[in-house]
Amino acid sequence: MRQQVAKLAGVSEATVSRVLNGVGPVKEATKQRVLAAAAELGYVPNALAQQFARKKSGNLGVVLPHMAKVSLFSTYYFSEMLSGIGSEVQASGNDLLLLFREADQPRNYTALFQSQKIDALIVLGARNMELDRTALEELTQEGYPFCVLNQRFGPRGSESPFLTVDADHWSGSQEAVRHLIDIGCRRIAFINGPEQYSNSIDRREGYLSVLVQSGLPIEQPLMLTGNYSRKSGYELANQLAELIKSGQADSVFAANDRMAIGAMQGLREHGLEAGRDYALCGYDDADAARMASPQLTSVAVPFQEMGRKAASLVLGGGSIGADASRSAVLPVQLVIRESTGVQQRRSK
Amino acid sequence: MRQQVAKLAGVSEATVSRVLNGVGPVKEATKQRVLAAAAELGYVPNALAQQFARKKSGNLGVVLPHMAKVSLFSTYYFSEMLSGIGSEVQASGNDLLLLFREADQPRNYTALFQSQKIDALIVLGARNMELDRTALEELTQEGYPFCVLNQRFGPRGSESPFLTVDADHWSGSQEAVRHLIDIGCRRIAFINGPEQYSNSIDRREGYLSVLVQSGLPIEQPLMLTGNYSRKSGYELANQLAELIKSGQADSVFAANDRMAIGAMQGLREHGLEAGRDYALCGYDDADAARMASPQLTSVAVPFQEMGRKAASLVLGGGSIGADASRSAVLPVQLVIRESTGVQQRRSK
Repeated sequence: MRQQVAKLAGVSEATVSRVLNGVGPVKEATKQRVLAAAAELGYVPNALAQQFARKKSGNLGVVLPHMAKVSLFSTYYFSEMLSGIGSEVQASGNDLLLLFREADQPRNYTALFQSQKIDALIVLGARNMELDRTALEELTQEGYPFCVLNQRFGPRGSESPFLTVDADHWSGSQEAVRHLIDIGCRRIAFINGPEQYSNSIDRREGYLSVLVQSGLPIEQPLMLTGNYSRKSGYELANQLAELIKSGQADSVFAANDRMAIGAMQGLREHGLEAGRDYALCGYDDADAARMASPQLTSVAVPFQEMGRKAASLVLGGGSIGADASRSAVLPVQLVIRESTGVQQRRSK
Repeated sequence: MRQQVAKLAGVSEATVSRVLNGVGPVKEATKQRVLAAAAELGYVPNALAQQFARKKSGNLGVVLPHMAKVSLFSTYYFSEMLSGIGSEVQASGNDLLLLFREADQPRNYTALFQSQKIDALIVLGARNMELDRTALEELTQEGYPFCVLNQRFGPRGSESPFLTVDADHWSGSQEAVRHLIDIGCRRIAFINGPEQYSNSIDRREGYLSVLVQSGLPIEQPLMLTGNYSRKSGYELANQLAELIKSGQADSVFAANDRMAIGAMQGLREHGLEAGRDYALCGYDDADAARMASPQLTSVAVPFQEMGRKAASLVLGGGSIGADASRSAVLPVQLVIRESTGVQQRRSK
């Protein structure tokens, strides 16, 4: 009988055994073919019945980015996304499996589904690299529900090869820079994060596009790079102080709030106050933006909503969840506070 | 043969079947008795062999406290503990299963082990209540490895009924209050969190004990209660401003940094600056303490280390992990910064 199933399914008998016993690695497509053939032939051994009856794990997996030093869970963007994912997981009666992966190990995500550790997967901290793409392509081929969060593959605006939920950092950066120009700034220093993230590239392109639209020159010395930590912003303060005191810069746009606050603290040591001596705009609208003094103008990113959206897409069931055409780019919003000193500047 | 095993183990044949087939609920102690009896009689059916060979899930479970509104993952203490747990889980090659539980649902933690969803468990946000105690006692009886994090059962210093990892908030609060007295404060307002947490009780007792030791009066109007949110600290600022302006208070000790920063911001609106017009001490030493302006004196709690410790205890294997005598209370440390304005006050 197994022989007939194998013939009808176009696979080896060994493969039929693997499928019917539910052991060993079998591609999802192959498995479905074998099950269909077995069903057609009325071949329903015990193991197969079990296979059908087997319960789901009830776990949504989240692959975490590997970060050597940064305390990942303490970063605003990450903890907020996790919050959003968590609320959806909780509402659906599932649990959340956090999967720690090394930066340069092969990613065998399909095995997580095959061993029934997870029913669906969200990938955080994916990079546009061979290693990551291969793993995601494998998931796509096998038809497992997964979603990439906060990272784009391919150029902005192009159709995504994977189901992706991202935020519109290009427009957010444009809004921030336009606001600085609106309040009278003309020489806007820019602290970006590393460009291995599509996030950072979006911010730079947003910044540059508004300068060009506004007829302002692009000045290389005004474009600085940190690593999204407060310390990296603080360490750039010496350079920024020179730029501001010499009149080469009148404002700072930082790609996240941590760097903005670091810069603010460093510049204070040079006698320069945000909102008084220069305008300062951060990004993310983290809790720290409201806690800083002066409170920080920033761009609010709906991280929680992004997490919820990704979770609801993949928990929606079956391969629908992996339908790349349902990818979403969520809007962001400028929040104006004291650090861009709007009132003082307007009254001038 | 099953009959003989049942007799030797002192259980029913049905129980032997359940154990040998690995299905249905069986107490761990009973299971061990049956397996021992079967081994003694040389009775090793296939199912038993499978039972022995069955793989672990490779998951450490973490029960999360239910919080209706607060974004749990964004709170400093929680994200730091999760970081510590995560680093240990990652180092041991395991994954981390976050378990969302409703506040008032029965906690069937043993089922998580029986269904092999997890190999070990850390319980966060446990409360000293019947519902929580019953679930933890059940785990103890079954011999499953688990650890309670950041909550004490029974009075301070008493032997813990469960394996627990906590921090010494009593001493931490004492240090904070002693520091305020050292720099000349005599009327120390105290903002505590809700006393359903052993944490809050420890802080209050630490505060009161130092007042008594120092011969300072205990003044009920100086003891305020927030809910550990920034907003709750901000909302207490009106009351605090009156106390400070009337000379009834010269300093504020808040049970966490969020409330301290909220109070600082609210008091600023009354023209009162921390470190100049009053001394301010927070608790936790969150990132926000360094980001605030003036930077906040606070008590550093080793949340990451607490998480690592709890994870390494329960991942240590077997019922050793549930040995309550290995409970730990980690030390905390006062970090002095601008908000207690030490230099200004000392120079007076």
